[in-house]
Amino acid sequence: MSEAKRRAAEKAMDFVEDGMIVGVGTGSTVAYFIDALGREPERVRGAVSSSEQSTERLRAHGIEVLDLNATGPLALYVDGADECDPAKRLIKGGGAALTREKIIAQASQRFVCIIDPSKQVDVLGRFPLPVEVVPMARSLVARDIVALTGAQPVWREGVVTDNGNWILDVHGLRIIDPVAMETAINQLPGVVSVGLFARRPADVVIVGEDTPRIL
Amino acid sequence: MSEAKRRAAEKAMDFVEDGMIVGVGTGSTVAYFIDALGREPERVRGAVSSSEQSTERLRAHGIEVLDLNATGPLALYVDGADECDPAKRLIKGGGAALTREKIIAQASQRFVCIIDPSKQVDVLGRFPLPVEVVPMARSLVARDIVALTGAQPVWREGVVTDNGNWILDVHGLRIIDPVAMETAINQLPGVVSVGLFARRPADVVIVGEDTPRIL
Repeated sequence: MSEAKRRAAEKAMDFVEDGMIVGVGTGSTVAYFIDALGREPERVRGAVSSSEQSTERLRAHGIEVLDLNATGPLALYVDGADECDPAKRLIKGGGAALTREKIIAQASQRFVCIIDPSKQVDVLGRFPLPVEVVPMARSLVARDIVALTGAQPVWREGVVTDNGNWILDVHGLRIIDPVAMETAINQLPGVVSVGLFARRPADVVIVGEDTPRIL
Repeated sequence: MSEAKRRAAEKAMDFVEDGMIVGVGTGSTVAYFIDALGREPERVRGAVSSSEQSTERLRAHGIEVLDLNATGPLALYVDGADECDPAKRLIKGGGAALTREKIIAQASQRFVCIIDPSKQVDVLGRFPLPVEVVPMARSLVARDIVALTGAQPVWREGVVTDNGNWILDVHGLRIIDPVAMETAINQLPGVVSVGLFARRPADVVIVGEDTPRIL
């Protein structure tokens, strides 16, 4: 599994162009990408990071971490996913960095998603769908999600996001129409973001098979 | 003006029933409502507050402030507004408490909005529309709002919300379809909430005229 992650991550270096500012996601597959970037740090002008965890790793490699408000739109965003369907729509947020990841994806021209083969599914929802909520709205949003989906939200107790919020993981979904579900959950007061990347899916998916496969 | 606010606020006491837990908004009109509630604090079991500011004032009157996650749905929410149209749709957030206000409005069966007559408009948008954003997404959301609306977002510099976020005020709107605009802005990554209350408008509006008028 870790070899598959490494292969996908290293293949993503093909999309890095000299002088770029690269958007960088979060997670174990992305850690391999940061390490690959760190072997030739002079190639990039810097990175925009989606988490404290990735920021630390980037800095350890001597890569400057920049503020998205200062950089403007980015050419490239590289990130992993918890699930990926054939239309390159994703579930993300297992690592609780979904909101910042969604912001950087939205700000980027090209989103390259790096996964090991186990992340591929026909229909999203086997992986519990993370929803970041304002703490005071936890019970309200849980009730509203039950009414909306019939599925079971579970509070990821003890986890506080980098934005100071909480996570609900919605179990038992089978997401036939990911765009509609993302749109509906975005409307619920108290929701900061939902870990469905369907309105803005990945542009390129790299699956870390023996020979990395590009979708 | 302050007399009109006081009249609207005191009239809202007609909607308070014994033993209720009351949702309480934020702002100068709501301050009069809290003071009125504070003259008979034994009537209510407690309050859910939308801001640190209202929490302090409630406690000063000996009213217990409760956690929305513990109370469950509320019967009544009383709050002001910056603008109100004939369909009881509102712009709120001049005081930067829009997200918590929206959460409590959503959790409440009946939303009673208390305003002075100057807040009534035919079409929403003369008052700049507040949008609460995750700090790293300030520029991104500003660009996306320009693309979506053609109007001008201005960063309310130096203001940090109770949730640790920032505010953009969108100037120059004329909101013909408030539900569509609320729905569209809610979709933008980095937006925590928008100060349009159209999907869930007020149920009752009290205008603080010489004899308070109930819409």
